Amino acid sequence: MSELNLHPTAQDLLFREARTANTFTSEPVTDEQLQAVYDLVKYAPTAYNQSPLRVVLVRSDEARGRLVDLMSEGNRPKTAAAPLVAILAADNEFHEELPALLPHFPQAKDLFFADRAVREESAFLNAALQSAYFILGIRAAGLAAGPMTGFDFPAVRKEFLDDDHTPLMVVNIGRPGPDAWFPRSPRLAYEEVVTAV
Amino acid sequence: MSELNLHPTAQDLLFREARTANTFTSEPVTDEQLQAVYDLVKYAPTAYNQSPLRVVLVRSDEARGRLVDLMSEGNRPKTAAAPLVAILAADNEFHEELPALLPHFPQAKDLFFADRAVREESAFLNAALQSAYFILGIRAAGLAAGPMTGFDFPAVRKEFLDDDHTPLMVVNIGRPGPDAWFPRSPRLAYEEVVTAV
Repeated sequence: MSELNLHPTAQDLLFREARTANTFTSEPVTDEQLQAVYDLVKYAPTAYNQSPLRVVLVRSDEARGRLVDLMSEGNRPKTAAAPLVAILAADNEFHEELPALLPHFPQAKDLFFADRAVREESAFLNAALQSAYFILGIRAAGLAAGPMTGFDFPAVRKEFLDDDHTPLMVVNIGRPGPDAWFPRSPRLAYEEVVTAV
Repeated sequence: MSELNLHPTAQDLLFREARTANTFTSEPVTDEQLQAVYDLVKYAPTAYNQSPLRVVLVRSDEARGRLVDLMSEGNRPKTAAAPLVAILAADNEFHEELPALLPHFPQAKDLFFADRAVREESAFLNAALQSAYFILGIRAAGLAAGPMTGFDFPAVRKEFLDDDHTPLMVVNIGRPGPDAWFPRSPRLAYEEVVTAV
Protein backbone atom coordinates (compact mmCIF):
# COMPACT_ATOMS: atom_id res chain seq x y z
CA MET A 1 0.00 0.00 0.00
CA SER A 2 2.08 2.87 -1.23
CA GLU A 3 -0.30 5.38 0.37
CA LEU A 4 0.74 4.17 3.84
CA ASN A 5 3.98 5.04 5.62
CA LEU A 6 3.47 2.25 8.16
CA HIS A 7 5.68 -0.72 7.28
CA PRO A 8 3.74 -3.73 5.92
CA THR A 9 5.07 -5.90 8.77
CA ALA A 10 3.54 -3.47 11.27
CA GLN A 11 0.31 -3.32 9.24
CA ASP A 12 0.08 -7.10 9.52
CA LEU A 13 0.98 -7.17 13.23
CA LEU A 14 -1.65 -4.61 14.21
CA PHE A 15 -4.41 -4.97 11.63
CA ARG A 16 -4.18 -7.41 8.74
CA GLU A 17 -2.92 -10.63 10.37
CA ALA A 18 -3.97 -9.89 13.97
CA ARG A 19 -7.22 -11.55 14.99
CA THR A 20 -9.52 -11.78 17.97
CA ALA A 21 -8.29 -14.96 19.68
CA ASN A 22 -10.68 -17.51 21.18
CA THR A 23 -8.03 -19.97 22.45
CA PHE A 24 -4.66 -19.31 24.09
CA THR A 25 -1.45 -21.13 25.00
CA SER A 26 -0.54 -21.37 28.71
CA GLU A 27 2.38 -18.92 28.38
CA PRO A 28 1.92 -16.22 31.06
CA VAL A 29 1.50 -12.52 30.30
CA THR A 30 3.87 -10.57 32.54
CA ASP A 31 3.47 -7.22 34.25
CA GLU A 32 6.49 -6.06 32.22
CA GLN A 33 4.60 -6.77 29.00
CA LEU A 34 1.55 -4.88 30.25
CA GLN A 35 3.69 -1.95 31.36
CA ALA A 36 5.33 -1.79 27.91
CA VAL A 37 1.88 -1.83 26.27
CA TYR A 38 0.67 0.96 28.52
CA ASP A 39 3.80 3.04 28.06
CA LEU A 40 3.19 2.93 24.31
CA VAL A 41 -0.55 3.54 24.09
CA LYS A 42 -0.75 6.18 26.81
CA TYR A 43 0.44 8.73 24.23
CA ALA A 44 -2.58 8.36 21.92
CA PRO A 45 -5.04 11.24 22.12
CA THR A 46 -8.05 11.85 24.37
CA ALA A 47 -10.14 15.03 24.71
CA TYR A 48 -8.48 17.44 27.12
CA ASN A 49 -5.91 14.68 27.70
CA GLN A 50 -8.44 13.36 30.19
CA SER A 51 -7.09 9.78 30.00
CA PRO A 52 -10.09 8.14 31.72
CA LEU A 53 -9.23 4.48 31.02
CA ARG A 54 -8.62 2.30 34.08
CA VAL A 55 -7.55 -1.34 33.86
CA VAL A 56 -8.19 -4.09 36.41
CA LEU A 57 -5.99 -7.14 35.83
CA VAL A 58 -7.74 -10.25 37.09
CA ARG A 59 -4.69 -12.13 38.40
CA SER A 60 -5.91 -14.34 41.26
CA ASP A 61 -7.79 -17.61 40.77
CA GLU A 62 -10.44 -16.41 43.18
CA ALA A 63 -11.12 -13.22 41.21
CA ARG A 64 -11.02 -15.11 37.92
CA GLY A 65 -13.69 -17.47 39.19
CA ARG A 66 -15.94 -14.59 40.18
CA LEU A 67 -15.50 -12.92 36.79
CA VAL A 68 -16.10 -16.09 34.78
CA ASP A 69 -19.44 -16.55 36.55
CA LEU A 70 -20.51 -13.09 35.32
CA MET A 71 -19.61 -13.69 31.67
CA SER A 72 -22.24 -14.79 29.17
CA GLU A 73 -22.19 -18.54 28.68
CA GLY A 74 -20.35 -18.52 25.35
CA ASN A 75 -17.55 -16.38 26.79
CA ARG A 76 -16.91 -18.50 29.93
CA PRO A 77 -14.55 -21.20 28.67
CA LYS A 78 -12.12 -18.76 27.02
CA THR A 79 -12.28 -16.32 29.93
CA ALA A 80 -11.43 -19.21 32.26
CA ALA A 81 -8.56 -20.39 30.04
CA ALA A 82 -6.85 -17.13 29.00
CA PRO A 83 -3.42 -16.46 30.59
CA LEU A 84 -4.60 -13.01 31.63
CA VAL A 85 -7.95 -11.24 31.75
CA ALA A 86 -8.37 -7.47 32.06
CA ILE A 87 -11.46 -5.40 32.85
CA LEU A 88 -11.40 -2.04 31.02
CA ALA A 89 -13.36 0.76 32.68
CA ALA A 90 -13.98 4.50 32.47
CA ASP A 91 -13.18 6.66 35.50
CA ASN A 92 -16.09 9.10 35.83
CA GLU A 93 -14.06 11.17 38.27
CA PHE A 94 -11.20 11.72 35.82
CA HIS A 95 -11.56 15.46 36.27
CA GLU A 96 -9.72 15.18 39.58
CA GLU A 97 -6.54 14.46 37.58
CA LEU A 98 -7.10 17.22 35.00
CA PRO A 99 -5.02 19.93 36.71
CA ALA A 100 -2.05 17.54 36.51
CA LEU A 101 -2.88 16.18 33.04
CA LEU A 102 -3.65 19.56 31.45
CA PRO A 103 -1.31 22.00 33.19
CA HIS A 104 -1.87 24.78 30.60
CA PHE A 105 -5.66 24.75 31.18
CA PRO A 106 -6.43 23.44 34.68
CA GLN A 107 -9.80 25.27 34.67
CA ALA A 108 -11.14 22.52 32.41
CA LYS A 109 -11.84 20.58 35.58
CA ASP A 110 -14.58 23.00 36.61
CA LEU A 111 -15.43 24.76 33.32
CA PHE A 112 -16.37 21.66 31.36
CA PHE A 113 -16.53 18.78 33.76
CA ALA A 114 -18.27 20.03 36.90
CA ASP A 115 -21.42 18.15 35.80
CA ARG A 116 -21.31 14.41 36.46
CA ALA A 117 -23.52 13.59 33.44
CA VAL A 118 -21.14 15.49 31.15
CA ARG A 119 -18.20 13.66 32.72
CA GLU A 120 -19.81 10.25 32.31
CA GLU A 121 -20.45 10.77 28.61
CA SER A 122 -16.96 12.15 27.99
CA ALA A 123 -15.33 9.41 30.06
CA PHE A 124 -17.22 6.71 28.15
CA LEU A 125 -16.22 8.02 24.72
CA ASN A 126 -12.60 8.67 25.64
CA ALA A 127 -12.12 5.43 27.58
CA ALA A 128 -13.52 3.65 24.52
CA LEU A 129 -10.86 5.34 22.36
CA GLN A 130 -8.22 4.24 24.87
CA SER A 131 -9.63 0.70 24.88
CA ALA A 132 -9.04 0.55 21.13
CA TYR A 133 -5.49 1.86 21.58
CA PHE A 134 -4.98 -0.78 24.30
CA ILE A 135 -6.19 -3.61 22.04
CA LEU A 136 -3.73 -2.51 19.34
CA GLY A 137 -1.02 -2.16 22.02
CA ILE A 138 -1.55 -5.79 23.05
CA ARG A 139 -1.04 -6.73 19.42
CA ALA A 140 2.08 -4.52 19.31
CA ALA A 141 3.49 -6.78 22.05
CA GLY A 142 2.98 -9.81 19.83
CA LEU A 143 0.02 -10.96 21.90
CA ALA A 144 -3.59 -11.58 20.90
CA ALA A 145 -6.52 -9.75 22.46
CA GLY A 146 -10.01 -11.17 22.87
CA PRO A 147 -12.28 -8.21 23.68
CA MET A 148 -15.77 -9.15 24.93
CA THR A 149 -18.92 -7.21 25.80
CA GLY A 150 -20.98 -10.31 26.61
CA PHE A 151 -21.14 -10.13 30.41
CA ASP A 152 -23.37 -8.85 33.23
CA PHE A 153 -22.35 -5.18 33.31
CA PRO A 154 -24.04 -4.14 36.59
CA ALA A 155 -22.66 -7.23 38.35
CA VAL A 156 -19.09 -6.70 37.07
CA ARG A 157 -19.32 -3.10 38.19
CA LYS A 158 -20.49 -4.18 41.66
CA GLU A 159 -17.93 -6.99 42.06
CA PHE A 160 -14.82 -5.35 40.61
CA LEU A 161 -15.40 -1.60 40.33
CA ASP A 162 -17.51 1.04 42.09
CA ASP A 163 -20.06 3.74 41.33
CA ASP A 164 -17.36 6.01 39.92
CA HIS A 165 -16.18 3.46 37.34
CA THR A 166 -18.15 2.19 34.33
CA PRO A 167 -17.09 -1.12 32.77
CA LEU A 168 -16.56 -1.04 28.99
CA MET A 169 -15.29 -4.49 28.11
CA VAL A 170 -13.40 -7.56 29.32
CA VAL A 171 -10.30 -8.53 27.34
CA ASN A 172 -8.60 -11.92 27.25
CA ILE A 173 -4.87 -11.62 26.62
CA GLY A 174 -2.27 -14.19 25.63
CA ARG A 175 -0.59 -16.04 22.80
CA PRO A 176 -3.09 -17.63 20.42
CA GLY A 177 -3.56 -21.40 20.86
CA PRO A 178 -4.79 -24.06 18.42
CA ASP A 179 -7.80 -23.10 16.28
CA ALA A 180 -7.70 -19.65 17.86
CA TRP A 181 -10.04 -17.98 15.42
CA PHE A 182 -12.99 -18.27 13.11
CA PRO A 183 -12.59 -17.44 9.41
CA ARG A 184 -12.36 -13.68 8.90
CA SER A 185 -15.82 -12.14 8.46
CA PRO A 186 -16.43 -9.68 5.61
CA ARG A 187 -15.92 -5.94 6.05
CA LEU A 188 -17.96 -3.09 4.59
CA ALA A 189 -16.63 -1.54 1.39
CA TYR A 190 -15.18 1.98 1.50
CA GLU A 191 -18.20 3.27 -0.43
CA GLU A 192 -20.57 1.89 2.20
CA VAL A 193 -18.79 3.73 5.01
CA VAL A 194 -17.40 6.96 3.57
CA THR A 195 -19.46 9.66 1.86
CA ALA A 196 -18.54 13.22 0.88
CA VAL A 197 -20.43 16.49 1.02
CA MET B 1 11.28 -1.57 24.27
CA SER B 2 12.20 -5.24 24.07
CA GLU B 3 8.74 -6.25 25.30
CA LEU B 4 7.22 -4.91 22.07
CA ASN B 5 7.33 -6.63 18.70
CA LEU B 6 6.25 -3.46 16.91
CA HIS B 7 9.27 -1.79 15.29
CA PRO B 8 10.37 1.43 17.05
CA THR B 9 9.82 3.39 13.82
CA ALA B 10 6.20 2.27 13.79
CA GLN B 11 5.87 3.01 17.53
CA ASP B 12 7.01 6.57 16.81
CA LEU B 13 4.77 6.97 13.75
CA LEU B 14 1.61 5.86 15.54
CA PHE B 15 2.16 6.79 19.19
CA ARG B 16 5.39 8.36 20.42
CA GLU B 17 6.10 11.07 17.84
CA ALA B 18 2.58 11.48 16.44
CA ARG B 19 0.68 14.41 17.89
CA THR B 20 -2.69 16.07 17.62
CA ALA B 21 -2.06 18.80 15.02
CA ASN B 22 -3.49 22.30 15.35
CA THR B 23 -2.02 23.71 12.13
CA PHE B 24 -1.66 22.12 8.69
CA THR B 25 0.13 22.68 5.38
CA SER B 26 -2.01 23.24 2.28
CA GLU B 27 -1.12 19.84 0.79
CA PRO B 28 -4.42 18.10 -0.10
CA VAL B 29 -5.52 14.78 1.38
CA THR B 30 -6.64 12.52 -1.45
CA ASP B 31 -9.44 9.97 -1.63
CA GLU B 32 -6.75 7.39 -2.36
CA GLN B 33 -5.09 8.14 0.99
CA LEU B 34 -8.42 7.85 2.79
CA GLN B 35 -9.21 4.61 1.05
CA ALA B 36 -5.82 3.18 2.09
CA VAL B 37 -6.48 4.24 5.69
CA TYR B 38 -9.90 2.61 5.66
CA ASP B 39 -8.65 -0.58 4.02
CA LEU B 40 -6.14 -0.93 6.87
CA VAL B 41 -8.25 -0.08 9.90
CA LYS B 42 -11.42 -1.86 8.77
CA TYR B 43 -9.85 -5.11 10.04
CA ALA B 44 -9.64 -4.03 13.68
CA PRO B 45 -12.26 -5.65 15.92
CA THR B 46 -15.82 -4.61 16.81
CA ALA B 47 -18.44 -6.59 18.73
CA TYR B 48 -20.24 -8.99 16.39
CA ASN B 49 -18.21 -7.38 13.61
CA GLN B 50 -20.93 -4.73 13.63
CA SER B 51 -18.67 -2.06 12.09
CA PRO B 52 -20.95 0.90 12.89
CA LEU B 53 -18.52 3.74 12.01
CA ARG B 54 -19.60 6.02 9.19
CA VAL B 55 -17.46 8.87 7.85
CA VAL B 56 -18.64 12.07 6.18
CA LEU B 57 -15.82 13.87 4.35
CA VAL B 58 -16.50 17.59 4.26
CA ARG B 59 -15.08 18.34 0.81
CA SER B 60 -17.01 21.34 -0.53
CA ASP B 61 -16.41 24.93 0.57
CA GLU B 62 -20.11 25.32 1.22
CA ALA B 63 -20.25 22.34 3.58
CA ARG B 64 -17.02 23.40 5.27
CA GLY B 65 -18.50 26.79 6.01
CA ARG B 66 -21.60 25.24 7.55
CA LEU B 67 -19.49 22.95 9.73
CA VAL B 68 -17.09 25.67 10.89
CA ASP B 69 -20.06 27.69 12.13
CA LEU B 70 -21.07 24.76 14.36
CA MET B 71 -17.63 24.27 15.94
CA SER B 72 -16.79 25.83 19.29
CA GLU B 73 -14.94 29.09 18.87
CA GLY B 74 -11.48 27.74 19.66
CA ASN B 75 -11.84 25.01 17.04
CA ARG B 76 -13.02 27.26 14.16
CA PRO B 77 -9.72 28.51 12.71
CA LYS B 78 -8.12 25.08 12.42
CA THR B 79 -11.33 23.49 11.11
CA ALA B 80 -11.45 26.21 8.46
CA ALA B 81 -7.78 25.73 7.54
CA ALA B 82 -7.33 21.94 7.54
CA PRO B 83 -6.89 20.30 4.10
CA LEU B 84 -9.65 17.83 4.94
CA VAL B 85 -12.26 17.56 7.68
CA ALA B 86 -14.19 14.38 8.50
CA ILE B 87 -17.27 13.86 10.67
CA LEU B 88 -17.19 10.46 12.40
CA ALA B 89 -20.57 9.01 13.33
CA ALA B 90 -22.20 5.83 14.62
CA ASP B 91 -24.85 4.13 12.47
CA ASN B 92 -27.62 3.12 14.87
CA GLU B 93 -29.15 0.91 12.17
CA PHE B 94 -25.95 -1.12 11.74
CA HIS B 95 -27.96 -4.30 12.40
CA GLU B 96 -29.30 -4.15 8.86
CA GLU B 97 -25.81 -5.09 7.66
CA LEU B 98 -25.26 -7.85 10.24
CA PRO B 99 -26.45 -10.79 8.11
CA ALA B 100 -23.75 -9.82 5.59
CA LEU B 101 -21.11 -8.92 8.20
CA LEU B 102 -21.65 -11.96 10.42
CA PRO B 103 -22.61 -14.75 8.02
CA HIS B 104 -22.07 -17.52 10.62
CA PHE B 105 -24.58 -15.92 13.04
CA PRO B 106 -27.08 -13.80 11.11
CA GLN B 107 -29.61 -14.15 13.97
CA ALA B 108 -27.59 -11.55 15.91
CA LYS B 109 -29.59 -8.95 14.00
CA ASP B 110 -32.79 -9.88 15.87
CA LEU B 111 -31.49 -11.74 18.93
CA PHE B 112 -29.34 -8.94 20.29
CA PHE B 113 -30.09 -5.84 18.32
CA ALA B 114 -33.86 -5.72 17.81
CA ASP B 115 -34.05 -3.00 20.50
CA ARG B 116 -33.05 0.47 19.33
CA ALA B 117 -31.67 1.50 22.76
CA VAL B 118 -29.42 -1.58 22.81
CA ARG B 119 -28.27 -0.78 19.29
CA GLU B 120 -27.52 2.86 20.11
CA GLU B 121 -25.32 1.96 23.06
CA SER B 122 -23.49 -0.75 21.15
CA ALA B 123 -23.06 1.48 18.10
CA PHE B 124 -21.64 4.29 20.21
CA LEU B 125 -19.05 2.08 21.92
CA ASN B 126 -18.00 0.26 18.77
CA ALA B 127 -17.92 3.35 16.57
CA ALA B 128 -15.71 4.95 19.24
CA LEU B 129 -13.32 1.99 18.98
CA GLN B 130 -13.32 2.41 15.20
CA SER B 131 -12.73 6.16 15.58
CA ALA B 132 -9.56 5.37 17.53
CA TYR B 133 -8.46 2.89 14.85
CA PHE B 134 -9.17 5.58 12.24
CA ILE B 135 -7.06 8.19 14.06
CA LEU B 136 -4.14 5.74 14.16
CA GLY B 137 -4.77 4.87 10.51
CA ILE B 138 -4.43 8.54 9.56
CA ARG B 139 -1.08 8.52 11.34
CA ALA B 140 -0.16 5.29 9.51
CA ALA B 141 -0.56 7.28 6.28
CA GLY B 142 2.00 9.80 7.54
CA LEU B 143 -0.71 12.39 8.19
CA ALA B 144 -1.69 14.15 11.39
CA ALA B 145 -5.17 13.93 12.89
CA GLY B 146 -6.83 16.64 14.95
CA PRO B 147 -9.82 15.01 16.67
CA MET B 148 -12.30 17.44 18.28
CA THR B 149 -15.42 17.05 20.40
CA GLY B 150 -15.93 20.80 20.84
CA PHE B 151 -18.93 21.42 18.55
CA ASP B 152 -22.72 21.64 18.62
CA PHE B 153 -23.64 17.94 18.48
CA PRO B 154 -27.40 18.29 17.81
CA ALA B 155 -26.76 20.87 15.09
CA VAL B 156 -24.07 18.77 13.37
CA ARG B 157 -26.43 15.81 13.49
CA LYS B 158 -29.21 17.87 11.92
CA GLU B 159 -27.03 19.52 9.24
CA PHE B 160 -24.88 16.57 8.17
CA LEU B 161 -26.46 13.35 9.47
CA ASP B 162 -29.95 12.11 10.40
CA ASP B 163 -31.82 10.50 13.29
CA ASP B 164 -30.17 7.15 12.61
CA HIS B 165 -26.61 8.52 12.92
CA THR B 166 -24.97 9.88 16.08
CA PRO B 167 -21.95 12.17 15.69
CA LEU B 168 -18.89 11.19 17.75
CA MET B 169 -16.21 13.65 16.72
CA VAL B 170 -14.88 15.90 13.97
CA VAL B 171 -11.33 15.20 12.76
CA ASN B 172 -9.02 17.59 10.93
CA ILE B 173 -6.62 15.74 8.63
CA GLY B 174 -3.46 16.88 6.87
CA ARG B 175 0.27 17.35 7.12
CA PRO B 176 1.29 19.33 10.20
CA GLY B 177 2.16 22.97 9.59
CA PRO B 178 4.33 25.42 11.56
CA ASP B 179 3.90 25.32 15.35
CA ALA B 180 1.45 22.47 14.90
CA TRP B 181 1.31 21.39 18.52
CA PHE B 182 1.50 22.36 22.14
CA PRO B 183 4.18 20.79 24.34
CA ARG B 184 3.21 17.20 25.21
CA SER B 185 1.06 17.08 28.34
CA PRO B 186 1.88 14.56 31.08
CA ARG B 187 0.39 11.08 31.14
CA LEU B 188 -0.75 9.04 34.12
CA ALA B 189 1.75 6.53 35.48
CA TYR B 190 1.11 2.81 34.99
CA GLU B 191 0.37 2.44 38.71
CA GLU B 192 -2.34 5.12 38.52
CA VAL B 193 -4.16 3.29 35.74
CA VAL B 194 -3.60 -0.44 36.22
CA THR B 195 -4.50 -2.39 39.36
CA ALA B 196 -4.64 -6.14 39.98
CA VAL B 197 -7.05 -8.34 41.90
